[in-house]
Amino acid sequence: MGIKGIRTALKVDLDKPAREQLGLHNRWHPEVPAVGKIANNEVVKIECLDWTGGQIGNNDSADDLRNVDLTQIHYLSGPFDIDTAEPGDVLLVEIQDVQPFEDQPWGYSGVFHKENGGGFLDQIYPETAKAIWDFEGIFCSSRHIPHVRFAGLIHPGILGCAPSAEILAEWNRREGELIAANTVADQIVAQPPNPTNAHGGNAAGDVQSRIAKEGARTIPGRPENGGNCDIKNLSRGSKIYLPVHVPGAKFSVGDLHFSQGDGEVSFCGGIEMSGVITLKFTVIKNGVAKLDMKSPIFHAGPVEPQFGSGRYLTFEGFSVDEHGKQHFLDTTVAYRQACLRVIEYLRRYGYSDYQIYILLSCAPVQGHIAGIVDIPNTCTTLSVPMDIFDFDIRPEADVVKKEMAT
Amino acid sequence: MGIKGIRTALKVDLDKPAREQLGLHNRWHPEVPAVGKIANNEVVKIECLDWTGGQIGNNDSADDLRNVDLTQIHYLSGPFDIDTAEPGDVLLVEIQDVQPFEDQPWGYSGVFHKENGGGFLDQIYPETAKAIWDFEGIFCSSRHIPHVRFAGLIHPGILGCAPSAEILAEWNRREGELIAANTVADQIVAQPPNPTNAHGGNAAGDVQSRIAKEGARTIPGRPENGGNCDIKNLSRGSKIYLPVHVPGAKFSVGDLHFSQGDGEVSFCGGIEMSGVITLKFTVIKNGVAKLDMKSPIFHAGPVEPQFGSGRYLTFEGFSVDEHGKQHFLDTTVAYRQACLRVIEYLRRYGYSDYQIYILLSCAPVQGHIAGIVDIPNTCTTLSVPMDIFDFDIRPEADVVKKEMAT
Amino acid sequence: MGIKGIRTALKVDLDKPAREQLGLHNRWHPEVPAVGKIANNEVVKIECLDWTGGQIGNNDSADDLRNVDLTQIHYLSGPFDIDTAEPGDVLLVEIQDVQPFEDQPWGYSGVFHKENGGGFLDQIYPETAKAIWDFEGIFCSSRHIPHVRFAGLIHPGILGCAPSAEILAEWNRREGELIAANTVADQIVAQPPNPTNAHGGNAAGDVQSRIAKEGARTIPGRPENGGNCDIKNLSRGSKIYLPVHVPGAKFSVGDLHFSQGDGEVSFCGGIEMSGVITLKFTVIKNGVAKLDMKSPIFHAGPVEPQFGSGRYLTFEGFSVDEHGKQHFLDTTVAYRQACLRVIEYLRRYGYSDYQIYILLSCAPVQGHIAGIVDIPNTCTTLSVPMDIFDFDIRPEADVVKKEMAT
Amino acid sequence: MGIKGIRTALKVDLDKPAREQLGLHNRWHPEVPAVGKIANNEVVKIECLDWTGGQIGNNDSADDLRNVDLTQIHYLSGPFDIDTAEPGDVLLVEIQDVQPFEDQPWGYSGVFHKENGGGFLDQIYPETAKAIWDFEGIFCSSRHIPHVRFAGLIHPGILGCAPSAEILAEWNRREGELIAANTVADQIVAQPPNPTNAHGGNAAGDVQSRIAKEGARTIPGRPENGGNCDIKNLSRGSKIYLPVHVPGAKFSVGDLHFSQGDGEVSFCGGIEMSGVITLKFTVIKNGVAKLDMKSPIFHAGPVEPQFGSGRYLTFEGFSVDEHGKQHFLDTTVAYRQACLRVIEYLRRYGYSDYQIYILLSCAPVQGHIAGIVDIPNTCTTLSVPMDIFDFDIRPEADVVKKEMAT
Repeated sequence: MGIKGIRTALKVDLDKPAREQLGLHNRWHPEVPAVGKIANNEVVKIECLDWTGGQIGNNDSADDLRNVDLTQIHYLSGPFDIDTAEPGDVLLVEIQDVQPFEDQPWGYSGVFHKENGGGFLDQIYPETAKAIWDFEGIFCSSRHIPHVRFAGLIHPGILGCAPSAEILAEWNRREGELIAANTVADQIVAQPPNPTNAHGGNAAGDVQSRIAKEGARTIPGRPENGGNCDIKNLSRGSKIYLPVHVPGAKFSVGDLHFSQGDGEVSFCGGIEMSGVITLKFTVIKNGVAKLDMKSPIFHAGPVEPQFGSGRYLTFEGFSVDEHGKQHFLDTTVAYRQACLRVIEYLRRYGYSDYQIYILLSCAPVQGHIAGIVDIPNTCTTLSVPMDIFDFDIRPEADVVKKEMAT
Repeated sequence: MGIKGIRTALKVDLDKPAREQLGLHNRWHPEVPAVGKIANNEVVKIECLDWTGGQIGNNDSADDLRNVDLTQIHYLSGPFDIDTAEPGDVLLVEIQDVQPFEDQPWGYSGVFHKENGGGFLDQIYPETAKAIWDFEGIFCSSRHIPHVRFAGLIHPGILGCAPSAEILAEWNRREGELIAANTVADQIVAQPPNPTNAHGGNAAGDVQSRIAKEGARTIPGRPENGGNCDIKNLSRGSKIYLPVHVPGAKFSVGDLHFSQGDGEVSFCGGIEMSGVITLKFTVIKNGVAKLDMKSPIFHAGPVEPQFGSGRYLTFEGFSVDEHGKQHFLDTTVAYRQACLRVIEYLRRYGYSDYQIYILLSCAPVQGHIAGIVDIPNTCTTLSVPMDIFDFDIRPEADVVKKEMAT
Repeated sequence: MGIKGIRTALKVDLDKPAREQLGLHNRWHPEVPAVGKIANNEVVKIECLDWTGGQIGNNDSADDLRNVDLTQIHYLSGPFDIDTAEPGDVLLVEIQDVQPFEDQPWGYSGVFHKENGGGFLDQIYPETAKAIWDFEGIFCSSRHIPHVRFAGLIHPGILGCAPSAEILAEWNRREGELIAANTVADQIVAQPPNPTNAHGGNAAGDVQSRIAKEGARTIPGRPENGGNCDIKNLSRGSKIYLPVHVPGAKFSVGDLHFSQGDGEVSFCGGIEMSGVITLKFTVIKNGVAKLDMKSPIFHAGPVEPQFGSGRYLTFEGFSVDEHGKQHFLDTTVAYRQACLRVIEYLRRYGYSDYQIYILLSCAPVQGHIAGIVDIPNTCTTLSVPMDIFDFDIRPEADVVKKEMAT
Repeated sequence: MGIKGIRTALKVDLDKPAREQLGLHNRWHPEVPAVGKIANNEVVKIECLDWTGGQIGNNDSADDLRNVDLTQIHYLSGPFDIDTAEPGDVLLVEIQDVQPFEDQPWGYSGVFHKENGGGFLDQIYPETAKAIWDFEGIFCSSRHIPHVRFAGLIHPGILGCAPSAEILAEWNRREGELIAANTVADQIVAQPPNPTNAHGGNAAGDVQSRIAKEGARTIPGRPENGGNCDIKNLSRGSKIYLPVHVPGAKFSVGDLHFSQGDGEVSFCGGIEMSGVITLKFTVIKNGVAKLDMKSPIFHAGPVEPQFGSGRYLTFEGFSVDEHGKQHFLDTTVAYRQACLRVIEYLRRYGYSDYQIYILLSCAPVQGHIAGIVDIPNTCTTLSVPMDIFDFDIRPEADVVKKEMAT
């Protein structure tokens, strides 16, 4: 009996421009041509570039991040036709493994410049910053953020099935309305379709034109297909249930993260990497009605890193902003405050604010909604696993400032 | 050598009106007189009424909930002077235990009427509903929500030190501005000081008048003292660090919950109970500056119920509301959507929407902020522990509708 | 609707000699009269003395331990008739809670003298030692073992149903054969029935005589009824399935432990206490055949203290004894070696060997059988939770000797 | 800046006889020549054959297992000289990852024939049996044991440093004494040095002769170097501290397991596989004295599969054997009884006894020493994670016999 490994459904080329690779695409559109077929119940490996398609280098300069071209993102692998999948079905995807490429044991996290990408704290931290992470088996560490090391909770930032034409139209309608309603000069609230650098895979002619013109940006996750949900716990061993909207499902995946914190606050915030994901696909006929499903649901695997409930230090954040203004049950404001509390706390050890901002984005921190009904304040919590530091960060331990410059 | 138990610093009387008990109070004010003194490093037990002061009965009618008098809430035990505590210090409080009274092994959860209290989903579920929970040692179950049973993650909803006069003034300023700015007719965005039923403990005369007139309501948690933070993980074994704002700290505690879900979405949503909490108090001199602390921080104990990461079913919620309107990174909207997804899913088994709404409020569900930077959508997740049900709720199991009427 | 607590099925008196309390007994015998009746599906509280019946005091002398009268042990509460239980049924017992008495927040652990009780390491540590533990809510600490504090994994050391006459005869036969076969002068291999201090509850006359003469000692756990199994994980929230051998089951319970390590190596090794246990009883008709059960089985609750897999320091022990003698797959020898390795390691911090020996008995250490087939060596592991110490015991941390004398 | 992967310190050839590969060896001896040098603090990958060197095939016949040549085992990779390591040092080895070969996603577990290898239950189950496991990312399943699937707790069964000449002599002395003392006709209690198929790596001439003649078998783990400890928790992320006995340490590793249960009861019981292990080596000068170390110690990583304490079904086993004979604190007998209890229980679902025996060997079951002092009985527990089955094995669920034949 012959032994062999799992079929690789798509290979990527790290040395070739992403825009020239026909197995990739960077817009959601029902007409992006399928790049391959996967049988029902089949297990395959799919290779992925990092989300920027290789724009960021393993070096000590943040210039590439400052100048990143965000019209290109995210390069996704696919779409794939799943045999027998029809609209109304649910595609059950089991994430059997995610790994960096063996000869690319590194990733990056960064803070975008406020003028080019920004992030959750860009009003306070408008500059660019970058950290390179080296992978050491299941662990990672960074020469740019000393005294920290942790096991990855590796996962894809993006996976989902293609929207139908109707769903795509709805996305463009509702996001267009938000954009139209916005009157704040320097605030980008959403990205409309943008033909610049739109990559429709191996589409050509009119199809490519339509994709470029109408294709939804991949930045937001959306309820109908999940997409860029950035859920750190959607890691190895997870089973996710995805609604199917077009014949064949047209499944895509990408934006692999070696690790990420809840919120992925710096936007370029997971530990971004290229690599390979192993997936099993199972079609559940008529699953959307059976599960009464409007958005993806999942259950995680049993192998998340476990620190023990007593090994987290937790910071509270309320919906009163840093200018003393009271907001009404604004959970976003509340979580921003929790982030600032962590920065203030960890700064005492010698870290720069930007180092902590990046760390909050990519380390396995837990962001919880604690109380969301006690008007006018939402209370959120941000829990930092103390064991990722090689020194004692408990409040009862002495603070010794360290050399953290890099 | 004589053996004895821990000192009880305050006793409450379940048969006497809460408003007549001088060890309780229901407003935050620096002048509420201390009801007792606790030594630095002392361990004491403190008895607490339920947050309404006994307005809700162990019966099958929700009328008491419909007619609850919310000007009275929350009845807190205290305040206590902690020896040596001064403004600028941090009061470290270790929660050594929380227990219901031995002869009161029950609690309640409910949904308030939209016209009297409301809750997170009151636009959709405006009616009143109530569930009584029976405590069976560490477990609880309800005759009003069949086929569910779980271990409590018992905790105080409220604990904190009194505000200084300056902080109180700041609270009243910023919340007053929010109230003043509100133009929505039927939306209460915050509660200003309200003399009706204001209880200043054993204050009298001018002091009681000032407390009634200026005292901040206990409903919101606030960054300066934590207060009604409603953090389910602040359970047995936790150590919380609280800023001290007045001489003696004037610590208060109350609103005990046998269990609560992240968000406590139905407002009357924890499993509300009376009981006794065992606390140890330690003063950290000059702790606010040492820890650079603006809001409470804590670390939890090692005894939270653990279901295993693979035993949660997780629902995604995005900031597109139920009317199809796109909101900009509105985490509150996103979490509401996640709640609705759970209701739609569990409804298939025969539960009423109100039963699920209550369950989401009080069972140990996890509400995470997954991605908060992918404009315009925040992605939140709501994870339901599958083992609290006595039937199989995994998507792959058959759905059999059950008799859930009560 | 009247609210009330759970019925207490048996009260004990801490101020009265155990031998005079008719609700207690200290031998296994089918004829010990039932002290009460419990309904099928009923929940009750049962009070228990500590296993010695109050022989050990909360003081700093180990004399009481040196002179303990072991003919009296273990004082068990019961037996109780469970309504409808018949031989061949299984009695499902849910442990809903275990608590020390509120005014007795302490327990003890000790090492018996080799001449009176002994223990797992008595060849090396023949002397007596004692530690008193103070309970602080869910935590405990000891003035006799400084720098250690941990949450209890509270449980009953003993629970089980009465043996039938046939089973009792079998016990006496097989243990008698072991005793008869033993030729080692100073090695007690088992305890035969012993009329001295035999307590048959409220038995009298011939029945009491038979109990005294034939009653099996409570020291060993036995496959047929579990008995003194000393399983630390049989804690709050556990459900245990016990075979029923006599009409009414005649269930007994006792030997409460606030905590215990795997092996309970010092024999008087759990944190022994008096207290109250809350149990629910359910009869499974014909359960022994249905489950094909020869020994008890259980599943634990979800609330065990969780330190995280990375927070244990693990020591290996092989079946080569301390004299360099090779034993054949002797797991007992191997585990003893693992214990010695911990003592050698922790001694470096200033602890006496006896302090560590006690700590190993009562702290929540994990003793695993790693490999049991690699002839001639069994490999066992003993894992010590590092977070029970208030200093850093990782091998990579510096060793600073502390003042541990008490 | 060039990016590259981690250096592979040894490659193996799956198509070439193990005995011809000079980077392998199968005896412990100080003179086995080093096959390579590793720098202090270096991270390397090391490839390993399965323990038999490829004798077992991915097929449905157990004949290869029946006829396995056990004089060859275990083929280890190495030894490696670690730069700067000297006797008295400790070699800290961090297990950064373990993976099967990408094109060999399978392993095997089996029961050896009593006449050729045997196992823990060979008195009762003397026949041969085999199960092939297919790896699906982090999971595995077997066509030979239906309805079971679980995440691997992947680890090396063997790792250790070479013995010095003195230690080797001691091993041969003490194990020789055990062999000499044995008078049971058909019981092999230990394996003396055996020149047949002894593989000394690239040793030649007199050195090879000495290795063949004196080299200790790799079957038992031993206190001085750990060796074949078969500790399932020594998985990814673990740090193990190994005593160094010869210059350069001469570190070897092998016997990779995709998974294993505590005890590895069937002997060929882990899920045996070939693959690659990623290790980091750090020398701690004079570490043996510093740590007062006689046997290896380790701490595990944070990524063990976690089922939750309530998701195990636990069986008790006492030291009364299946013939009713009472043994004195014989933990080995007790654990055998616990194994038999599981077999009796799971047999009800249609599994054959051999299927369960294999499953107990390789699934992540927990074997604990519960009480080891309650003469004459040791109580052990064997905990089976219920979530590895795709049906409900709780005692309260109905038993439906399934088609388990294969």
